[in-house]
Amino acid sequence: MCDQLRQDYLSCYGHSTLDTPNIDSLAKRGVLFTNAYCQAPECAPSRASFYSGRYLSSHGVMGYEDATRLDEQMISDYLEPLGYRTAVVGKSHSFKKESELRRLGVDMNTAYAKASQHGGFEPYEIHEGDLACSVAPNDHGYSNYLRSLGYDAANPWQSCANSSIAPNGEIHDGWKLRSARFPAAVSEEHSETAFITSRAIDFIAETEDRPWCLHLSYIKPHWPVIAPKPYHNLFGPSDVQPVVSNQIEIKHPHPVYQAFTQLEYSRTFCRNDVRETVIPVYMGLVKQIDDHLGRLFEVLEKRALVENTIIIFTSDHGDYLGDHGLGEKYLFHDASVKIPLIIAAPGVENDTTRGMKRDELVEAVDILPTLIQLTGADTCHERLEGHSLLPLLELKATAANWREFAVSELDYSDQGVRNRLGLDPYMCRAIMIKSHRWKYIYYWNLRPQLFDLHEDPNEFVDLGSMSEYKSICHMMDERLVSWQNSLKRRVGIAYDCVLEQGPDRDEKNGFIIGRW
Amino acid sequence: MCDQLRQDYLSCYGHSTLDTPNIDSLAKRGVLFTNAYCQAPECAPSRASFYSGRYLSSHGVMGYEDATRLDEQMISDYLEPLGYRTAVVGKSHSFKKESELRRLGVDMNTAYAKASQHGGFEPYEIHEGDLACSVAPNDHGYSNYLRSLGYDAANPWQSCANSSIAPNGEIHDGWKLRSARFPAAVSEEHSETAFITSRAIDFIAETEDRPWCLHLSYIKPHWPVIAPKPYHNLFGPSDVQPVVSNQIEIKHPHPVYQAFTQLEYSRTFCRNDVRETVIPVYMGLVKQIDDHLGRLFEVLEKRALVENTIIIFTSDHGDYLGDHGLGEKYLFHDASVKIPLIIAAPGVENDTTRGMKRDELVEAVDILPTLIQLTGADTCHERLEGHSLLPLLELKATAANWREFAVSELDYSDQGVRNRLGLDPYMCRAIMIKSHRWKYIYYWNLRPQLFDLHEDPNEFVDLGSMSEYKSICHMMDERLVSWQNSLKRRVGIAYDCVLEQGPDRDEKNGFIIGRW
Repeated sequence: MCDQLRQDYLSCYGHSTLDTPNIDSLAKRGVLFTNAYCQAPECAPSRASFYSGRYLSSHGVMGYEDATRLDEQMISDYLEPLGYRTAVVGKSHSFKKESELRRLGVDMNTAYAKASQHGGFEPYEIHEGDLACSVAPNDHGYSNYLRSLGYDAANPWQSCANSSIAPNGEIHDGWKLRSARFPAAVSEEHSETAFITSRAIDFIAETEDRPWCLHLSYIKPHWPVIAPKPYHNLFGPSDVQPVVSNQIEIKHPHPVYQAFTQLEYSRTFCRNDVRETVIPVYMGLVKQIDDHLGRLFEVLEKRALVENTIIIFTSDHGDYLGDHGLGEKYLFHDASVKIPLIIAAPGVENDTTRGMKRDELVEAVDILPTLIQLTGADTCHERLEGHSLLPLLELKATAANWREFAVSELDYSDQGVRNRLGLDPYMCRAIMIKSHRWKYIYYWNLRPQLFDLHEDPNEFVDLGSMSEYKSICHMMDERLVSWQNSLKRRVGIAYDCVLEQGPDRDEKNGFIIGRW
Repeated sequence: MCDQLRQDYLSCYGHSTLDTPNIDSLAKRGVLFTNAYCQAPECAPSRASFYSGRYLSSHGVMGYEDATRLDEQMISDYLEPLGYRTAVVGKSHSFKKESELRRLGVDMNTAYAKASQHGGFEPYEIHEGDLACSVAPNDHGYSNYLRSLGYDAANPWQSCANSSIAPNGEIHDGWKLRSARFPAAVSEEHSETAFITSRAIDFIAETEDRPWCLHLSYIKPHWPVIAPKPYHNLFGPSDVQPVVSNQIEIKHPHPVYQAFTQLEYSRTFCRNDVRETVIPVYMGLVKQIDDHLGRLFEVLEKRALVENTIIIFTSDHGDYLGDHGLGEKYLFHDASVKIPLIIAAPGVENDTTRGMKRDELVEAVDILPTLIQLTGADTCHERLEGHSLLPLLELKATAANWREFAVSELDYSDQGVRNRLGLDPYMCRAIMIKSHRWKYIYYWNLRPQLFDLHEDPNEFVDLGSMSEYKSICHMMDERLVSWQNSLKRRVGIAYDCVLEQGPDRDEKNGFIIGRW
């Protein structure tokens, strides 16, 4: 998993100047999904959906500081009973609330409790990026690593790996986008991407004798946008794709969209000098990940692990990079909500599906059910809200018998938007319902947004306030209600138990209701 | 709290032959709510809403065997930090899943873990009725009590308290409704209602020196419908109210309604001989509770506790008793979904509100926020979904600034209905949205039901399939969506923390996103 990698910044997804041969090689031997969506264009909520196979409304993570509900079961809860060592190298940005666990009397020193602070994964090498120095109170392996190499600083993650160094030796703060034009103040081999890849290789070498599931979770190309030499200037302004925006977007803007355009990162990314400085470095960071994945794939080949290892390549969400007058993510334009998704599963792909592209609407919540079906773990009908992608991988399902719409959720109480709009923090809910033709965005207590993707694939013309589209909005509202009712809320009773319920079983148990 | 007590089976709610002077006395000094609704017409889901202040979709209890989600906080979690000893005498029918708690490493011997098996209440005297002999693996104080009195049986709850004895000495199984015509095989003073009341008085005497909150939770008039002498024949067939049903109801019945009419308890309660035998005994059980509440109120008066004790009288749901061709509960006609609710809170009522009736739409989830406001506990905006009733008790709110619709939820996968309709267990969702004029019932993947309560207060004419009411159904769907979005899903982050979020705080914490 990459962090904040747009779907269209890979050559296998059509980028014209960013060549990613190693990721492309996965697509050549697996299946590439063109319509893959994250459950939220924001790190923590999106990741909680990947890890639990459930939507935001179920796992409860709506913002970057939210804990997952205590009884959510994560990838490890399904795979570890089968003997898979299930670990994370890199970022998880997913935790259960320690104070709540302690209130129940849980001993925080158990392996289970420790993993609960990292998406349920064994924290083989936790590296949360910026969070390592603030939110997550964990051991900072990467910072210690840099210190051991002589990078001497209170916070070498920030002062070295995520600051840049000018030709005159001056250090530039990586939080300022202008600093992106210089290379990182660490060498490439000591950068985050190199370190995380090496630690993944360590894990694989160490775990060869038993089944394993590794969440290799890169921080990049997530900000700070600082790349080590030579990736900082592999690309230049001529490699930057034309901005996707149109004057019509700001004519009668939706109030939430308008508020996001007014934020600092949006205003900044509307500047050509910013885009021409930052986007080439963003591309360099992607290129660096591709190179390191090549290194990892070589290890897998050498160790003869390619033929029994399922590889899934994806990202938690995209990045506007100035499109639609926006920076960062959060809203539901494709730049932000679409994700790359490639699955190479040995034993599944065959000559027919090898290198295939599939256009069905697939979601982050589908990953865990897919793993479960591939590994034979408990299918847990009472919890999982996604659908295994195996029927698509095996050509057993087609668009005709697949889901009709994808869903993504947003709580916009953060980012200053709530204050700009004067809203109560629990009113800031938005839900995308996206069919092949329509992208509909429901805002609680505000008008919806609607885009006709057939007529307007760039999502410029918001039809949400036009009376002639009322019936379309109503149809999409019905899908929204249907989706909300499909959520698996009864996690406190097993599927088999629900199946057995009824008067016959009650009578067997001694309850006879209503017999004369 | 009574179990399965219909709102209209009390004299203060207008019953013409069932006199309940002690409950009426509460209404005279407090406030009586005419439009009070439970969150589900079924014990366990309804109770979880009373105890947590949250709807079924949030706490996750959708059926009688479902556990509450692990991180739900119950009445005790709010009141015990303030020093209130918070206990239950009688039925809770609410628990957290022991296997899940153990999986987290929770020691089940702590007071907290023990209370978690009883709605969070200290189990001062747990008596779950029928559940005592099957689901709940707890000490059966009432059964031991009966044994100590010489009622010698493997299960004296069933064989003595809930069986009846014919004049010839023959014992009749209380599970058969026909047995209701004879008195219980225990004396009145040894019956469940007497025992539970006495244990409540014990608790109060024992706890006088500190603040307390007692959930006095009667099993009756819930089945088995067996009353001790003299309550088994205080009432007769002439006291039975006319059945509320109409031929038009079965002309084009909604499939779920139709399936419920076909169940054994519904068919049974369509018989006059059943109603004329059972309903007088149901009334006797209510009368017995009223008499014992009189005994309890005397104790409160003698101990001078009346002036500093908030008393709330309610029920978890109603009982069809043959109305609409139905028995039991589950569906959303008033007989089933309306509950009695009387609140007498010293210091709140005054000469203006004393004895007042209020017609606003109030719900079970409002009880906990009301207690919280009255006791000064943490208001916990990130969790509580109900609204404190204090503004109504103090005449500070009116219908104009109160909620516009009440909500109640149902999962009908149990009761054999799912099999009759051939449905997947996770498709059996229904939600009532009831305004002052309309009662709308959304069924996932089935047509809705709609009743015009102005024109048809008895809810006989289902307009849900009529094209001329499509726009009303659409309006009610919008309310449904609005309600679903109002649910408090972000329980993993405190309200204050959400309030503080924004770019300013991020910058203070060292994250500066998008600065050039």
